[in-house]
Amino acid sequence: MRRDVSEFVNRLDVEKVSGLLDIPEHRITGALKRKTLQYVYGRRELFRFDKPVSSIEGGTSVFTKPFDIVRGFPKISRTLMLYPALKRHFSSCRKVAVEEKMNGYNVRVALIGDALVALTRGGFVCPYTTEKAIDLAGLDFFKDHPELVLCGEMVGPDSPYVPKTFYDIESLDFFVFDIREKITGKPLPVMKRRALMEEYGIKSVRLFGEFELGEAHTGITRIIKELGGSMHEGVVIKDPQMVMPSVKYTSSESNCADLRYAFEFYNDFGRDFFFGRVCREAFQSVEWGEDEAQIRKRCQQLGESILVPMLNTIKKKKAGERIAENVQIRVKSLDTVKEFEEYLRLVGVDAVFEEPEKIGDEFLVRIKKMHQSTNDRTEAILGGQLWS
Amino acid sequence: MRRDVSEFVNRLDVEKVSGLLDIPEHRITGALKRKTLQYVYGRRELFRFDKPVSSIEGGTSVFTKPFDIVRGFPKISRTLMLYPALKRHFSSCRKVAVEEKMNGYNVRVALIGDALVALTRGGFVCPYTTEKAIDLAGLDFFKDHPELVLCGEMVGPDSPYVPKTFYDIESLDFFVFDIREKITGKPLPVMKRRALMEEYGIKSVRLFGEFELGEAHTGITRIIKELGGSMHEGVVIKDPQMVMPSVKYTSSESNCADLRYAFEFYNDFGRDFFFGRVCREAFQSVEWGEDEAQIRKRCQQLGESILVPMLNTIKKKKAGERIAENVQIRVKSLDTVKEFEEYLRLVGVDAVFEEPEKIGDEFLVRIKKMHQSTNDRTEAILGGQLWS
Repeated sequence: MRRDVSEFVNRLDVEKVSGLLDIPEHRITGALKRKTLQYVYGRRELFRFDKPVSSIEGGTSVFTKPFDIVRGFPKISRTLMLYPALKRHFSSCRKVAVEEKMNGYNVRVALIGDALVALTRGGFVCPYTTEKAIDLAGLDFFKDHPELVLCGEMVGPDSPYVPKTFYDIESLDFFVFDIREKITGKPLPVMKRRALMEEYGIKSVRLFGEFELGEAHTGITRIIKELGGSMHEGVVIKDPQMVMPSVKYTSSESNCADLRYAFEFYNDFGRDFFFGRVCREAFQSVEWGEDEAQIRKRCQQLGESILVPMLNTIKKKKAGERIAENVQIRVKSLDTVKEFEEYLRLVGVDAVFEEPEKIGDEFLVRIKKMHQSTNDRTEAILGGQLWS
Repeated sequence: MRRDVSEFVNRLDVEKVSGLLDIPEHRITGALKRKTLQYVYGRRELFRFDKPVSSIEGGTSVFTKPFDIVRGFPKISRTLMLYPALKRHFSSCRKVAVEEKMNGYNVRVALIGDALVALTRGGFVCPYTTEKAIDLAGLDFFKDHPELVLCGEMVGPDSPYVPKTFYDIESLDFFVFDIREKITGKPLPVMKRRALMEEYGIKSVRLFGEFELGEAHTGITRIIKELGGSMHEGVVIKDPQMVMPSVKYTSSESNCADLRYAFEFYNDFGRDFFFGRVCREAFQSVEWGEDEAQIRKRCQQLGESILVPMLNTIKKKKAGERIAENVQIRVKSLDTVKEFEEYLRLVGVDAVFEEPEKIGDEFLVRIKKMHQSTNDRTEAILGGQLWS
């Protein structure tokens, strides 16, 4: 579905974008030329920033009809050593707010013209997520606040990106963790945002509370240990006024779960996933002052998270299976299935869709995402190919 | 010690090199321009191929006075699944010869003019290794065979690159695993090479024997398990006639030892060392049909090889120590120390030399190799810096 885009480029009002985003026109035209700002074909045409340009986040989307801009979600830095990072990073705040970081996929929901769209982190409109967002967020909030974007996590087993079953969600649910101005990206303070969501009956991520800066370290460590025990991912630590950038911190169990996923498809994801997560394990162990038995257990878990999924993949391939990831979506409209299939092709995901299965008033569609690199390499090595 | 080299480039007789290596002149001049063929300053000026060019191996050295060429040591591919790889790779051989792959550093010793030089894998003359090679290999062989290169492993505790103590070597010893023609790189057959070394009293790596191709798999698996038990690295499997390229295969214990080293200096080496070694572990486990307990043990060892050295590094840094690797050399001449210090600077190794300590008729010099990236990153994270 990628087409020659030169004909579309002139649909972008460069002067207007330049003025609204407060960056020089030549940065915009330069980004277009280098395809850092790229045209995306679809029912809703848009241009997206593939990477940051000046102060503009990657994933920022510029719509052409009607003209609108949704700023990308800012990258949240991570702490590996909680205590010194809190001290250093939030020194200007008296308190920090601690909210749950859920394990799903990051979505921005905004009103463009008179229709809701759900944008992925990369700034694409996902047709499946859009169908879900219309149900889960609704229009009321946006009618009153058309200039705001709901940033939240789409979580649950019917997630085609990060399916998780341990949240006790039946299909897919949406939890808001940020409200920002569409064009400037300016965020609302934490408690104001939560009150607003309450008012419109939209779910927010769990708030663990506000902590005095000096005591936050102890409280967050306790929370992280509890969250890890139930496989939950971690927390985002926030300046209640949302002036200082937020910081994330995650549990060892979540690191290991990521590794298990990555090493099931080791040749597609193993390299990228590995290094950062190992560093998180190491620094957390030192910060927590672990004894020999605790270290031994952490090592066992780390080793198993890497090796066991690889062994399963190799054995599957040896038994003649094709290496693929099983996900599913649940939709009201079969049009959404078709659009989602096109969308996955557009973003370069190789997926095979099974026949829709009617369940109640919805359709369940099972999807096999092909991870070709792992499939091919495993097959080659099993066939005696040497490792160069 | 790197200088502007343009003035030196015309010291290379491009026509002669082109003729002897059988590649077009424009490939040589192109390589010079791109610095793939680079001038190396030193007591013995030379040009070295930093990477392969056409059929010429990286690490090939071209000396200018007197003119001579020593071909680089060819890359030896690795098998992750022994049985299918042997079948596929050595199908044209009735037998394979199996020799030990020792854990030291790869050295080529050759006579250039009337002096011995020891070249590292990269094609640099290492002054320390040269002093050692003069003692360990001697001149007799080269007087009779000036056109041959001894390729072997320098092994022992006085290795500034890969110090290992488990071989029961007092200082440093040299074990030949290949003899090749200097200019063509053509190898001698295995048994002929070993007989020749015997004749001149030069050590060869251990030969485990020649195996019928159909039985090699069983024999090599047994050898690898035994070698692993004593921390030894593995084997190189060879066509006795040296017509087919050799193949290497290593023990799990050696993989893990490499990982322990790499993750002590995780930010310098962790990324590069990790992925291949994890794949070796996974395929070996599947090939050996391991049960749950064996897999559990392998996971424990893998996890500990990664995490424990990192924890030690972080704790050291926390205690205010600087992260460095301790190695030592033992020399007869203090000039060699000075030259070796210059050499390390030339190849970009940041090292601090302690005062030489007289032991018998030799000098022991302890060297701290600085791994700045690990040092700096660990310090930063301990200080609360975020992980972007």
